[in-house]
Amino acid sequence: MYSLAVGIGTKNSKGDWLEVYYPQPTINLDEALVTSISSVIDYDGGNVAIDLNDAMISELAATITDDATKETLTAIQGSVRPMVLTLLESDSKPTSTPEVYLKLHLLSHRLVRPNETNLDDLYGLLPNVAWTEIGAVDLEELTTLQINTRKEGRVLEVSAVDKFPKMTNYVVPTGVRIAHSARVRLGAYLGDGTTVMHEGFVNFNAGALGPNMIEGRISQGVIIESGTDLGGSASTAGTLSGGGNIVITIGKDCLVSANAGTGIPLGDRCTIEAGLYITPGTVVQVLDENKNFVKMSKARELANRSDMLFIRNSQTGVVECRSNQQAIKLNDSLHAHN
Amino acid sequence: MYSLAVGIGTKNSKGDWLEVYYPQPTINLDEALVTSISSVIDYDGGNVAIDLNDAMISELAATITDDATKETLTAIQGSVRPMVLTLLESDSKPTSTPEVYLKLHLLSHRLVRPNETNLDDLYGLLPNVAWTEIGAVDLEELTTLQINTRKEGRVLEVSAVDKFPKMTNYVVPTGVRIAHSARVRLGAYLGDGTTVMHEGFVNFNAGALGPNMIEGRISQGVIIESGTDLGGSASTAGTLSGGGNIVITIGKDCLVSANAGTGIPLGDRCTIEAGLYITPGTVVQVLDENKNFVKMSKARELANRSDMLFIRNSQTGVVECRSNQQAIKLNDSLHAHN
Amino acid sequence: MYSLAVGIGTKNSKGDWLEVYYPQPTINLDEALVTSISSVIDYDGGNVAIDLNDAMISELAATITDDATKETLTAIQGSVRPMVLTLLESDSKPTSTPEVYLKLHLLSHRLVRPNETNLDDLYGLLPNVAWTEIGAVDLEELTTLQINTRKEGRVLEVSAVDKFPKMTNYVVPTGVRIAHSARVRLGAYLGDGTTVMHEGFVNFNAGALGPNMIEGRISQGVIIESGTDLGGSASTAGTLSGGGNIVITIGKDCLVSANAGTGIPLGDRCTIEAGLYITPGTVVQVLDENKNFVKMSKARELANRSDMLFIRNSQTGVVECRSNQQAIKLNDSLHAHN
Repeated sequence: MYSLAVGIGTKNSKGDWLEVYYPQPTINLDEALVTSISSVIDYDGGNVAIDLNDAMISELAATITDDATKETLTAIQGSVRPMVLTLLESDSKPTSTPEVYLKLHLLSHRLVRPNETNLDDLYGLLPNVAWTEIGAVDLEELTTLQINTRKEGRVLEVSAVDKFPKMTNYVVPTGVRIAHSARVRLGAYLGDGTTVMHEGFVNFNAGALGPNMIEGRISQGVIIESGTDLGGSASTAGTLSGGGNIVITIGKDCLVSANAGTGIPLGDRCTIEAGLYITPGTVVQVLDENKNFVKMSKARELANRSDMLFIRNSQTGVVECRSNQQAIKLNDSLHAHN
Repeated sequence: MYSLAVGIGTKNSKGDWLEVYYPQPTINLDEALVTSISSVIDYDGGNVAIDLNDAMISELAATITDDATKETLTAIQGSVRPMVLTLLESDSKPTSTPEVYLKLHLLSHRLVRPNETNLDDLYGLLPNVAWTEIGAVDLEELTTLQINTRKEGRVLEVSAVDKFPKMTNYVVPTGVRIAHSARVRLGAYLGDGTTVMHEGFVNFNAGALGPNMIEGRISQGVIIESGTDLGGSASTAGTLSGGGNIVITIGKDCLVSANAGTGIPLGDRCTIEAGLYITPGTVVQVLDENKNFVKMSKARELANRSDMLFIRNSQTGVVECRSNQQAIKLNDSLHAHN
Repeated sequence: MYSLAVGIGTKNSKGDWLEVYYPQPTINLDEALVTSISSVIDYDGGNVAIDLNDAMISELAATITDDATKETLTAIQGSVRPMVLTLLESDSKPTSTPEVYLKLHLLSHRLVRPNETNLDDLYGLLPNVAWTEIGAVDLEELTTLQINTRKEGRVLEVSAVDKFPKMTNYVVPTGVRIAHSARVRLGAYLGDGTTVMHEGFVNFNAGALGPNMIEGRISQGVIIESGTDLGGSASTAGTLSGGGNIVITIGKDCLVSANAGTGIPLGDRCTIEAGLYITPGTVVQVLDENKNFVKMSKARELANRSDMLFIRNSQTGVVECRSNQQAIKLNDSLHAHN
């Protein structure tokens, strides 16, 4: 079995799921666990989300063989909001809101890495809701709630109107700092030792493997490897590179400086100087370790190489790719592809 | 009559208005409606804000000919905060806090577009307040409240100290997503189909007509037309262009890429490459569809033209204005003005 | 004596301090005040944080010679959270959480300027906590609280996971506007007349002397002097300049335009054009007031000079340092150093 989790969620007045919170999702289950669940609830295989009540929870907690799930069952019992058990036999395309939420949890709990779980067509399964201190609110039910809260002398704080909630209201992984949590969506992957500063942003199905300093924007699908620093307002473009739809990755020990950006994946130990944006189509002058001209190249042809230093020469305006000072393995790599 | 609305507001301990929330403002009223109101409240014309009590509300709700206002009257009745009816005979310069708030609501409810309602000298009518979960708090009354909330083991969350609140605590227009609501002020205009991502920002009296993807900053007075994408951290400068104080607009189907910016208004189907900032004084090399030199031009002279592609040539450092690949009508337009 | 304050704080379940709120910290105390405190609490000198109870507070309030502290004592009495008196004999390296919090308060209360108080090794004394509407929460205690809040149909809003809280939940200095308070850390210094817009950011031990318009990022240690405008997404790099670890300051009446940045300190009346990032190593073409070439210079050699205008020539791609139009004292200064 692929994944199991129990949680508390929110439904609108029509009974449709708006979101689900799973405190302790699990992955790669043994069959004994599934059997113990099947003895209590009606499960015939496939990917399902089953509404729970307190009686079912008591029975499940007594039967289930997994300690984490047992603990969570006991913890959520008695909730005034609906409780749910979501069981995924396989990592296929999601078909329900609880299923998408479970997969977003798997990412933020570091049980899968970005691009490792099937999120096809997830947008249609994620309702756009108002995120407030009482949780998700259906947009059709919002105004009445806002007026009623006002009448009582308070404000219903609508912190977002979106398909995705902030991650920290669902899980705070160990060893991270997130200076402003509104900038990290549920479904972000933040490895141990990662700091996301106020200007940092991490989309769902994207992240930093840690340790990292993230002060720029990690777009959907992008992975930042360990030791890399993404400077303030630095941009990582989800992009077609070299003609294909490839996964953008920034390797280890790179520095994408403040206000810089990249539209190509980078290998290890690369630097982009502050304020410079490298798009796939940028024509770059490649220099060797002695700063001698090697060739002109489209940036997309340099994708995934290591030890590159990108600057715009301030005396000529030319965008150059030099050997990074910390390592001069660049040109071997470049010449090999000439 | 220009506009009518009833709402719930906040006054400080001196009795001064700090803000007003109008759930359903109306515009361009017929005279019958005004007459029905005048039969209940003392109204001699002009732009007024009249304090309401529950008895007046009952009487008004029984009399008034407008369904939306009747519904709102019933909904707000019984508020512990002060209730108000604001009636604007004309769109003249605002003279009170309730009046400014009504105009900001008109914008966010899409009843007027940016620059269509008179907001002259609004700053003086908007008190600078602390925005908290109990609403607007007078800054002189804040510390005592903060201490008292602390004593009870909670925190009074001061999410802003500003003259403008966030829009979503007042209205969430249909068909929008706002990933982080602190970035959209009341008075923003967001058309149907607009997504404002975490890095997006929309000031009051500014907006996107929709559908749009907004990941950059829309400054006061700026309008973004349908189909245009404002990339992450992209900047739209409120600016003097060509010597006059003109309204900045970005036309349809444009792309202002990540970390780019413009200080000139753009027509339709324009693109500014990632990381490039076009100021009115930028000297631009204009090229025709065959990339042949046409002329040098200050960017302000290119204001409002369509089908322009701005790049900084990475091999020469020269800022170029090329014909946008999607449409090559640019040069006809340019030549006509030679 | 260096500083005294009384406040309300939060401890985790182990009894460790997580944070302290001091409503009215004081600095540069006379000895009479210390004597009046010593008559009530056991104080033998040095820098100490002493837990208070209601009885001690009554006694202190009756004895103490300082009106502000007396007022605060009375105000906090009865708190359900722990109360503390922190007394710093000297401005030495902090040794406890209450001591660091007091120094951060001194900065935000404008009692000291950035870089004027000893914050050595503060990170180790600041626990990383979840910031919520019930205050600081120990990360080990968070999940249980989140589940329990969920069961009651609410959400525990985790607005940050960080060592520093937002300033406005501790102090709102007079005469400021902060459009989005999550962007200003406790320990920021905001002078009277300063506006921090949504895109502005101010780290601890950093700030703007006021009046200023801050729409960009003020890094730790950086000071912005009066009249200077930091544009949207503008970056100030904490940096080595000229080989030493110097304090970055931006002088009076400067304009660092939108999406621009500086890695060198600037004197007065300097401008950096929109989108241009000046790093210490940028080679700059220095021009005189007639735009004649003077010399090539590394930007770090221009550090702290006044009346500089930095642009990247859009016709050549060369980064130039021109005399700022508003003042042409630049070149005298430059020539003097030739």
